Amino acid sequence: MLGNVIVGQSGGPTAVINSSLAGVYKTAKDLGAPKVYGMRFGIQGFLEKNIIDMDDKIRSELDIELLKRTPSAYLGSCRFKLPEILDNRALYEQIFSIFEEYQITAFFYIGGNDSMDTIKKLSDYAALISSPIRFVGVPKTIDNDLAVTDHTPGFGSAAKYIASVTKELIRDGLVYDINLITIIEIMGRNAGWLTSAAALAKCEDCEGADLIYLPETAFDIDAFLDKVAEKMQKKKAVVVAVSEGIKTADGKYVFEHGTHNEYVDAFGHKQLSGTATYLAGLCREKFDCKTRAIELATLQRCAGHLTSRVDITEAYQVGGTAVTAASNGETGKMVILKRVSTDPYICTTDLYDVHMIANIEKKVPLEWITEDGTNVSTELINYIRPLIQAELTPIMITGQPRHIVVDIDSLW
Amino acid sequence: MLGNVIVGQSGGPTAVINSSLAGVYKTAKDLGAPKVYGMRFGIQGFLEKNIIDMDDKIRSELDIELLKRTPSAYLGSCRFKLPEILDNRALYEQIFSIFEEYQITAFFYIGGNDSMDTIKKLSDYAALISSPIRFVGVPKTIDNDLAVTDHTPGFGSAAKYIASVTKELIRDGLVYDINLITIIEIMGRNAGWLTSAAALAKCEDCEGADLIYLPETAFDIDAFLDKVAEKMQKKKAVVVAVSEGIKTADGKYVFEHGTHNEYVDAFGHKQLSGTATYLAGLCREKFDCKTRAIELATLQRCAGHLTSRVDITEAYQVGGTAVTAASNGETGKMVILKRVSTDPYICTTDLYDVHMIANIEKKVPLEWITEDGTNVSTELINYIRPLIQAELTPIMITGQPRHIVVDIDSLW
Repeated sequence: MLGNVIVGQSGGPTAVINSSLAGVYKTAKDLGAPKVYGMRFGIQGFLEKNIIDMDDKIRSELDIELLKRTPSAYLGSCRFKLPEILDNRALYEQIFSIFEEYQITAFFYIGGNDSMDTIKKLSDYAALISSPIRFVGVPKTIDNDLAVTDHTPGFGSAAKYIASVTKELIRDGLVYDINLITIIEIMGRNAGWLTSAAALAKCEDCEGADLIYLPETAFDIDAFLDKVAEKMQKKKAVVVAVSEGIKTADGKYVFEHGTHNEYVDAFGHKQLSGTATYLAGLCREKFDCKTRAIELATLQRCAGHLTSRVDITEAYQVGGTAVTAASNGETGKMVILKRVSTDPYICTTDLYDVHMIANIEKKVPLEWITEDGTNVSTELINYIRPLIQAELTPIMITGQPRHIVVDIDSLW
Repeated sequence: MLGNVIVGQSGGPTAVINSSLAGVYKTAKDLGAPKVYGMRFGIQGFLEKNIIDMDDKIRSELDIELLKRTPSAYLGSCRFKLPEILDNRALYEQIFSIFEEYQITAFFYIGGNDSMDTIKKLSDYAALISSPIRFVGVPKTIDNDLAVTDHTPGFGSAAKYIASVTKELIRDGLVYDINLITIIEIMGRNAGWLTSAAALAKCEDCEGADLIYLPETAFDIDAFLDKVAEKMQKKKAVVVAVSEGIKTADGKYVFEHGTHNEYVDAFGHKQLSGTATYLAGLCREKFDCKTRAIELATLQRCAGHLTSRVDITEAYQVGGTAVTAASNGETGKMVILKRVSTDPYICTTDLYDVHMIANIEKKVPLEWITEDGTNVSTELINYIRPLIQAELTPIMITGQPRHIVVDIDSLW
């Protein structure tokens, strides 16, 4: 039996983070929570008591469905890390006094490895003061860089989007009978999971990306140009997928290379240009042909119009599991996904000590990257493929995806 | 009764140009054409006799459905304008001798206003030499800048994509409790139809883009910054949609402004940066806040994963109408779309003299742009809305849109 609960969203948004929110809300109501509170803008908004009663927002089953299919964090998000308990005990006292005011019995935080640090610290403090409030983390990140869990909700939909638009961009590149080098820049500063999703574009009807570069291995600019030259011996339209975070062996980001590679704005201030723009410029010089630099930008995390049903369902499940766990007295845990089988794909949820997950970044294992660092292995493709399966079509109204209404007024 | 026919695709690809190809193929077969030939890479490939028998590629009703739902020009395309007849009569003799070789009775060209020039010149030459071959144009362009026709196939799907992702990008911008200026750059050098589609993001569940700038009116950089400042008085996240082709009153493209606005590549060569990047840089300086420059790039023309069913159906219809017209002896015509009613939306096809369409660029009427040039009128929104309605979901295989196989070997 649950008392009042509160839920927040933290870190970068995804296309399915609201499905986890829906899972938390629905299960909490089902388990008898009198109030399900939502904190606006994560723990940062919570500290300002920017707190709403979810019942005011979710009034029907249709609202739950709309919420599941609405991209980006419905409650708003933050990038805010709590200080160490010993460094600012007063802040923790403040937080727990707000819990008391709202008679909170369980706290759920939907986020990535930084956000799990919040669950860790709050549950540590609760232990310290013998508070019965339970703290459970709900995994979320397009980056798929959380430890222990097989994968993270949000990754599957981003991967599906990346694989699908890579296919479309490859097809677009075949239209003219000319040499064309397309560089697609994909999110992921330190972990190459998202970029490796470009490998899934390769199907019966598509040759796939020709070269794929992840940040896990050092990028060699000359070797890259040689590889492109090699590909151009065999075909006119070459497509390269790169992570925004690729670095050369000296630890410099690729986009920081070349002292002249600067975008100088109207006020004379230097701005670094993107990785794809830089590499496309190099290719244009070297091969004297048409090039395209495509940044998938924030679309890869907010494209609610093309989500994976597997992903959106698992996002809902981990939300529900978190509430059930808290109801069973669990605290200081994060919900994880456990893959039972890849083909047929079977996956369940479980709980894991959040101390073993917070602040740890899981990268692509080197054995899943080809030896020359220009592509990924079949194992990696087989790992990702089940996660992009099936669709949950948005509710389309007047030709566009319909989202649950955000109360804009409270945003400013 | 038709003899052999040939069809080509020309100019920029769209998400539904292959639906027109399917319409031409299906109607030609239904009307008894013994052979339906396809020219690879438009008239340019035709001159090299890069010609295929469509029956070798389309073998089933499923193939026709796959073709309809495959973005980008299946046959390949070109940007090639025929010389004036008087300047190079030999070239026309060459073309007509290839027609004779393949026993062509009708020629269909799917393209925009430049491509219609090809239909015009070939039909003029046929008249000159009293050839019975018929030439009919099939309209196609995401830019919607063809004269006489109510709108062009390809526009509706691009508009639907732009409206939908603008909605998603607006939603993404609300996530953090910070000031954020997002500039979305949309295709259209001279005509603002595509950029005005961003106005459709405004719905019950979305405030819409705050400012919309089309190339039809002169862009004033100071007035733009004042407008952004005004919006920021009222809200934290401001979204601006701009056409890539906006110019200041002196006729300079906005991205050419400011002598320092140069991207200097690794070899010291200057590259102009994009309009959104430039304006985002200005905003960052002026407002000292986070900014984002998003280029929708080629995705807006190749996003087969989000098409308008109205558009894909009309694209198919204009293809069929072209063949029926040729079968009835029509030549030197382009198929046009005639809107009978906007609500309920009813639209039919008709034929029009291609001489009145070729080489003419239809821009957004000034009365459909607000007086201060920062938004579009309700009339324009009402004009576009019917064109983005309903979906034709791609055939999804292993989590991604499936396309008809292109014979890659023949592409190089």
